[in-house]
Amino acid sequence: MRAVDIIMKKRDGGELSHDEIAFIVNSYVAGSIPEYQISAWLMAVFFKGMTPKETADLTEIMLHSGKTMDLSGLKGPFVDKHSTGGVGDKVSLILAPLVAACGVQDPMMSGRALGHTGGTLDKLESIPGYKTGLSEAQFRDYIKADGFAMTGQTAEIVPADKKLYALRDVTATVESIPLITASILSKKVAEGADALVFDVKTGSGAFMKTREASRALAKSLVDTGTAMGKHIVSVITDMSEPLGAMVGNFFEVEESLDCLEGKGPADLVDVTLRLSAWMLVAGGLAKTVDEGLAKCREALASGKPRQLFLDNVKRQGGDVDRLLALRGNYRSQYSRKLSAPASGYITKLDAYKIGLAGVYLGVGRNRTTDPVSPDVGFIFEKKLGSRVGKGDTVATVYGRDEASLEAAWPLIGESLSIGASAPDRAPLIVEEITAL
Amino acid sequence: MRAVDIIMKKRDGGELSHDEIAFIVNSYVAGSIPEYQISAWLMAVFFKGMTPKETADLTEIMLHSGKTMDLSGLKGPFVDKHSTGGVGDKVSLILAPLVAACGVQDPMMSGRALGHTGGTLDKLESIPGYKTGLSEAQFRDYIKADGFAMTGQTAEIVPADKKLYALRDVTATVESIPLITASILSKKVAEGADALVFDVKTGSGAFMKTREASRALAKSLVDTGTAMGKHIVSVITDMSEPLGAMVGNFFEVEESLDCLEGKGPADLVDVTLRLSAWMLVAGGLAKTVDEGLAKCREALASGKPRQLFLDNVKRQGGDVDRLLALRGNYRSQYSRKLSAPASGYITKLDAYKIGLAGVYLGVGRNRTTDPVSPDVGFIFEKKLGSRVGKGDTVATVYGRDEASLEAAWPLIGESLSIGASAPDRAPLIVEEITAL
Repeated sequence: MRAVDIIMKKRDGGELSHDEIAFIVNSYVAGSIPEYQISAWLMAVFFKGMTPKETADLTEIMLHSGKTMDLSGLKGPFVDKHSTGGVGDKVSLILAPLVAACGVQDPMMSGRALGHTGGTLDKLESIPGYKTGLSEAQFRDYIKADGFAMTGQTAEIVPADKKLYALRDVTATVESIPLITASILSKKVAEGADALVFDVKTGSGAFMKTREASRALAKSLVDTGTAMGKHIVSVITDMSEPLGAMVGNFFEVEESLDCLEGKGPADLVDVTLRLSAWMLVAGGLAKTVDEGLAKCREALASGKPRQLFLDNVKRQGGDVDRLLALRGNYRSQYSRKLSAPASGYITKLDAYKIGLAGVYLGVGRNRTTDPVSPDVGFIFEKKLGSRVGKGDTVATVYGRDEASLEAAWPLIGESLSIGASAPDRAPLIVEEITAL
Repeated sequence: MRAVDIIMKKRDGGELSHDEIAFIVNSYVAGSIPEYQISAWLMAVFFKGMTPKETADLTEIMLHSGKTMDLSGLKGPFVDKHSTGGVGDKVSLILAPLVAACGVQDPMMSGRALGHTGGTLDKLESIPGYKTGLSEAQFRDYIKADGFAMTGQTAEIVPADKKLYALRDVTATVESIPLITASILSKKVAEGADALVFDVKTGSGAFMKTREASRALAKSLVDTGTAMGKHIVSVITDMSEPLGAMVGNFFEVEESLDCLEGKGPADLVDVTLRLSAWMLVAGGLAKTVDEGLAKCREALASGKPRQLFLDNVKRQGGDVDRLLALRGNYRSQYSRKLSAPASGYITKLDAYKIGLAGVYLGVGRNRTTDPVSPDVGFIFEKKLGSRVGKGDTVATVYGRDEASLEAAWPLIGESLSIGASAPDRAPLIVEEITAL
């Protein structure tokens, strides 16, 4: 088998066999095919796509490039949720204890902030003492105790994805639905989940900016995951403005606690409940999404998810007393008010620009090795569609220093538009796709 | 400037600036961009193409990656012909002395056999003593003396093409019209020619198998060369069967001498005269192709081109007496007859398969470092459209040993088809494209 023939076959629109895809991926991981052939192949895949069978084969081959999590001895159902990334998206922090309270076991492996998007691990680590780098034994033990645990992906999970993603990043081959599908799904299946709910964000703050691209990814995740024998639901949700009223690492922990106490902002609560309800359906704990919703609402009202959250904080090394004491006070001394430049309605509160501005403030990072700060970000008083008077405070913005505020300010200014009439709003839950 | 942004721009169908193309090509030659970015860029170019301006910029940048031939002190017009490669294509050997006899100066740089196609340098080197690796001073002196000289491309001519071609070959990015255009044209312009005639072959034995692809390349060569201030003509000629009656290194020297003596096969003579006539037009020595044809016919009849050919053989170290003595006798002792398997008309004499079979026989090579033999190949008695009786000899085939004949035989058998009626023939001169 020769790499050049496989590149040519894909270039000319052919369907690659399992063995051909395995040859490319496994030889690349082993270092026996040069990177210049892999990148040419990736670009051919970018243009010619992959069939559902090819995508499932690629996912399976990537999955088996490394270790998979062994959850035997625990009893399921094992269900996880994955978001394609957004701004103010703290759903995982609320959802994991919520579905755990309903009987789901959630082996949650999350990522870090990168570019304009936030990261669950960074948010959790803003809690004093909280550790996310769990051993496999800890991960299993904590799931057993609380029904969920929060960790990062180890180097042994899908090493093929790490190599391929690094190459895609520098060869303009990231934005390919089958490659994104295989990257996401191989890692999620490697966690040991039997069922997965994907929150495919759409809009300016999403990785997929258009409805069409989001739908294509949502469908590809469902088709490919289903072909691999998993129960899959994709929920497309709006990410044109930040989710909730708070953006920032500790700020989002606070807002998660608010939600767990029944005081969360409506958009965040709605998205969280919907995704949680689908997790119950996917895990066989509810027959319909409405039944799932009812169970999730009931669980939330019981206070059990809040307790599970705090139990997990303690179990993963976090200081619960400090967390509760810091709540409402953990704010950088460097702040500015974002005021409405005119009277009217907020017609734009651009999630992408707010996310990018957050990198300057210290919420996120441009490089995986950059540090982030816990006590910086945005607290919004007004959101998209709000009526404002000229000079009204739209948000308080916290930066790690004056310079960071100064650097972020132009982007923050551009993120906000005021119009004479209320904007047409996209629905929060745009579409749901499942083969269940 | 970042390579990934340039790849993305091309991937998304944008037109690259001169500086962006220069960044990619020059950084690659300098080794400061990794090959995996170049190959991703090449694949993006494969899919998205290049505008005429981008192609001209790429050609110019590649041209200036190395030395260009200095022909100052010689008086022109400097006109060369380039063929995209075929089987039995010995046109250069006849055409160079023919146009020289008409006043054109032809600084001819040729290539070697590779894959199914033959190479002018290998044919010339089958003449005992003939040397093709001329120094620049020799090249200039010999052109001054005979009006033409025959050499190979040195490593200093367009080094960017050597690097890019090697990468394209292993990344399935060879078949791209703008990349082929820039590769051919940069090398030809580097020779110092003011005007160029391209013989774009079409059909099974051609690099471009379809009429459409051949036309696209022919047009791209004219557009790009014209944009660079050169006089360009593209002539699309048929290569579905071998050109002439002989295929093989010394065999083709013999057939060239036949042509120079007015005894050549009609197809070879017609193509050679037509290309030569266009060289006169492109070089300003004839107003129309008909006037060019008349001058070329007259020159051929005068015997001067034959003398110039022999003068050049002597000047480049060849033994003219041995050449003339070997004529008709220089045949491997290992031969077989290819007989017609039935009575009827030859409906196919597949140039591609004959060319591939020639690699086994010793005419050509699979790798640039493989040796070739002078005294092997095909001598056809019948060609496409000929009426044959069952068992009639179609060709005598010579191999370097029995094993090579045995290995080549299945392909040779497949190359021949006999039908009940004469086939529809494609015209030999398919189309001519020029901006003159």
